Amino acid sequence: REPFVLLGGVNVLESRAFALDVAGVYKEVCERLGIPLVFKASFDKANRSSIHSFRGPGLEEGLEILAAVKAEYGLPVVTDVHEPLQAAPAAEVCDIIQLPAFLARQTDLVAAMAQTGAVINIKKPQFLSPTQMKNVVEKFRECGNDRLMVCERGSNFGYDNLVVDMLGFRVVRDACDGVPLVFDVTHALQCRDPLGAASGGRRAQVGELARAGLAVGVAALFLEAHPDPAKALCDGPSALPLGQLEPFLDQARAVDELVKALPPLAID
Amino acid sequence: REPFVLLGGVNVLESRAFALDVAGVYKEVCERLGIPLVFKASFDKANRSSIHSFRGPGLEEGLEILAAVKAEYGLPVVTDVHEPLQAAPAAEVCDIIQLPAFLARQTDLVAAMAQTGAVINIKKPQFLSPTQMKNVVEKFRECGNDRLMVCERGSNFGYDNLVVDMLGFRVVRDACDGVPLVFDVTHALQCRDPLGAASGGRRAQVGELARAGLAVGVAALFLEAHPDPAKALCDGPSALPLGQLEPFLDQARAVDELVKALPPLAID
Amino acid sequence: REPFVLLGGVNVLESRAFALDVAGVYKEVCERLGIPLVFKASFDKANRSSIHSFRGPGLEEGLEILAAVKAEYGLPVVTDVHEPLQAAPAAEVCDIIQLPAFLARQTDLVAAMAQTGAVINIKKPQFLSPTQMKNVVEKFRECGNDRLMVCERGSNFGYDNLVVDMLGFRVVRDACDGVPLVFDVTHALQCRDPLGAASGGRRAQVGELARAGLAVGVAALFLEAHPDPAKALCDGPSALPLGQLEPFLDQARAVDELVKALPPLAID
Amino acid sequence: REPFVLLGGVNVLESRAFALDVAGVYKEVCERLGIPLVFKASFDKANRSSIHSFRGPGLEEGLEILAAVKAEYGLPVVTDVHEPLQAAPAAEVCDIIQLPAFLARQTDLVAAMAQTGAVINIKKPQFLSPTQMKNVVEKFRECGNDRLMVCERGSNFGYDNLVVDMLGFRVVRDACDGVPLVFDVTHALQCRDPLGAASGGRRAQVGELARAGLAVGVAALFLEAHPDPAKALCDGPSALPLGQLEPFLDQARAVDELVKALPPLAID
Repeated sequence: REPFVLLGGVNVLESRAFALDVAGVYKEVCERLGIPLVFKASFDKANRSSIHSFRGPGLEEGLEILAAVKAEYGLPVVTDVHEPLQAAPAAEVCDIIQLPAFLARQTDLVAAMAQTGAVINIKKPQFLSPTQMKNVVEKFRECGNDRLMVCERGSNFGYDNLVVDMLGFRVVRDACDGVPLVFDVTHALQCRDPLGAASGGRRAQVGELARAGLAVGVAALFLEAHPDPAKALCDGPSALPLGQLEPFLDQARAVDELVKALPPLAID
Repeated sequence: REPFVLLGGVNVLESRAFALDVAGVYKEVCERLGIPLVFKASFDKANRSSIHSFRGPGLEEGLEILAAVKAEYGLPVVTDVHEPLQAAPAAEVCDIIQLPAFLARQTDLVAAMAQTGAVINIKKPQFLSPTQMKNVVEKFRECGNDRLMVCERGSNFGYDNLVVDMLGFRVVRDACDGVPLVFDVTHALQCRDPLGAASGGRRAQVGELARAGLAVGVAALFLEAHPDPAKALCDGPSALPLGQLEPFLDQARAVDELVKALPPLAID
Repeated sequence: REPFVLLGGVNVLESRAFALDVAGVYKEVCERLGIPLVFKASFDKANRSSIHSFRGPGLEEGLEILAAVKAEYGLPVVTDVHEPLQAAPAAEVCDIIQLPAFLARQTDLVAAMAQTGAVINIKKPQFLSPTQMKNVVEKFRECGNDRLMVCERGSNFGYDNLVVDMLGFRVVRDACDGVPLVFDVTHALQCRDPLGAASGGRRAQVGELARAGLAVGVAALFLEAHPDPAKALCDGPSALPLGQLEPFLDQARAVDELVKALPPLAID
Repeated sequence: REPFVLLGGVNVLESRAFALDVAGVYKEVCERLGIPLVFKASFDKANRSSIHSFRGPGLEEGLEILAAVKAEYGLPVVTDVHEPLQAAPAAEVCDIIQLPAFLARQTDLVAAMAQTGAVINIKKPQFLSPTQMKNVVEKFRECGNDRLMVCERGSNFGYDNLVVDMLGFRVVRDACDGVPLVFDVTHALQCRDPLGAASGGRRAQVGELARAGLAVGVAALFLEAHPDPAKALCDGPSALPLGQLEPFLDQARAVDELVKALPPLAID
């Protein structure tokens, strides 16, 4: 089994310099640790809770920044799209395009993304059961694209809280004919003060949650970091402090290597 | 307090004749019972679980059918939109336009809908807490539209099941400065066989669930019916058999009238 | 269909005078409204969150107080038991004995309660599905007692919160061969500050939640009141202020009468 | 940090020979792997779903069998108690006595167990939040016993399903002043066919769930195995096949060793 790939980067493209700086740190750390890296950043936070929140540079400028990251560091990149018309331009720049969780059942968006031929990272909605992911995956396959990954980011657990069902990973994989699994540890840390307008998070627990997911055995880890989470323009409470990237990934790699070297148990 | 309004109709516009026939039955029954009616139908089921499912006639033909219903019966109409560009044309025909639950946080769609000046029916997402609805409502108000309703349709309860939190109605209303509340009893009946590709339902329980919601006290009831639910092209398992519309609404009206005549309890 | 019976009273027997005073108010109000009353009070709060909380007078003194209520007012009484040895003495005084939710699967307690021949009020655990209630009911029947009621008091919904599944009432009844249903509206109002040691409540919403449950159609309503909820020794945040008993019950009776007069809908 | 202790054994004492045979296998495997072992078995399944299910040999014979296991193999043993009167005799034989999840808030049982001076394994109820465990722990401490462990076995997730919240381990530990944590992987595998009378399970997933929990970092693993799970008298669907004990524990040990050697991340 292959070592995990890191879909790692930032929540939103706060600026061009910000993206290049952070991508540089990711590249350096991942090279040192031998972890394959795809740089992730969003050009538009299209579904912020509050209309007053920062959204990002938008499609055109955002893709230009991502292209600059590719050019500067030779890294593959991934971004999320929100409307059918964004799929083709995003796929011209990006190696992977991502389907947001809330939009995972929007058929036109699925079709437009499929037709690009890009690799697709499907975020599993917080409201969908593991077995239902087969319908989302089937939509992509019917549209001619089978270069798919499914990304767990937690399930609704009562109000304003998420839980990661560690038994769900295998259920998704079995329901989707062995689709590679991604674990988005950062978004799974989200929680909310019921009365607040911004999502909260539990970034102090990122290490233990990442270890748990990797111990199940996944193909990729999805991670968002920030040089100063307290000043992040989006989702700072869930972000890994960038200065902790290397020790964090060092742990992640150790767990991943160990788990993938274990012989499977024969239990039916 | 006003008697409830019925946002009543069909899940999807199966055909022009189908829509006109069903609307005619609704109109006749509602006139007999003195219930104000807005006819509801979708032109596109944009987020079906399976890509093989029927989607509807699409925007242009759908709006043409809804216009025919208006012309034929003098009824106001409501439909749901899925992309920013659909908001303006839908609002030209429809008196109310509806924001789908999965899309309730898509800022561009909210803005486009708000700008039409139409009355908006906001479906509360299955994954959102009652207090978080204030952020969705605030987005519309910031965009200059305060002609809003919020529609409850159940919350995720484990996998493949929904529950209606009867205490949540007041929490939504209080969090949103007294916004009128709608209760979508049909979609709240959805459940799923975890391995199936179509949503299931509990239509035999539509009476008791509607009575419970109306007993809390709501401004409007949302309902989908079908002449033969077993042959419906979408969501038949949750649909009221059209032949039961009159006895069903008769019950609903009785509960609504009673509850709205009760003096409020003084409990803090 | 019969009008609802009220299992109404207090959370815990704070004192003999307290019980007699409150029972007197209940009796007077229920006679005026024509509602059959069974007076409810606990002699021991055996599972308080905190060891520092008030527990009650205990079995002997508690039963003596309940006997005094019976003698004084001619009311049937109900109390809950927590150990097999308490069943027989409780049933000598009480007309109904109650199985606490957390203990609903303790076979020895079930057997001891069944053998008294008393009517049993089974509290449905917050952690049990409606269909699983058939196993609890079957235990009583196998032990020779079929004078049973099942009482809904909410289901776990994430952490520290409860939700009443209005569709669950019929599921319980169908799974248990038509067992009479009770709705415990007071305990269903419990919620918690995750960091607190006492349960919280939403007593201001008791009216709407009671109306919703009664609108489904139940055989009995379970209610706890207190002359001054802020000073109650247990569960004050969920208790109805006793001064509101009459208007509250007046509403409840109106909903119950209306719903039970409605003809059933023929939907399969 | 210490390597994990195994609280390992069988669900119920099916017979004396059964217990001795299985304990012998556990002892041999654990010695080979260097894992400290406490043998676990129940003398009474006091809360089976169905009254027709096997309960076990009872207190007296059960303790006699556990004493034989101690004598034969020199192993410490653990069993669960259900009534205050069982605490003292159980603690005479057992090194650890266990508080069942459903009974975790029964004050008299807590007090009786505390007074034995034995080490206590507190099963965290499926219906209790991590922060609420501090009240249970506080009860024991107020009763003079601080030799405590808290054991996670999953939380209610909708009906008839459990989920293990990997973020909850640390919350429990922090809420309870650093109490040692146990992970009961076997019971966390329980699920139910809503219409069935016996609990189901997902034993094929025991490996991945154990790895996930151990990756968080726990003091002990709780496990039930059976030579032939299909013939087990209780909870076979969740039991590890005894023949897989060694490869299972070998994996568990590897994850535990790795995780406990990792330096903590400095994230606030």
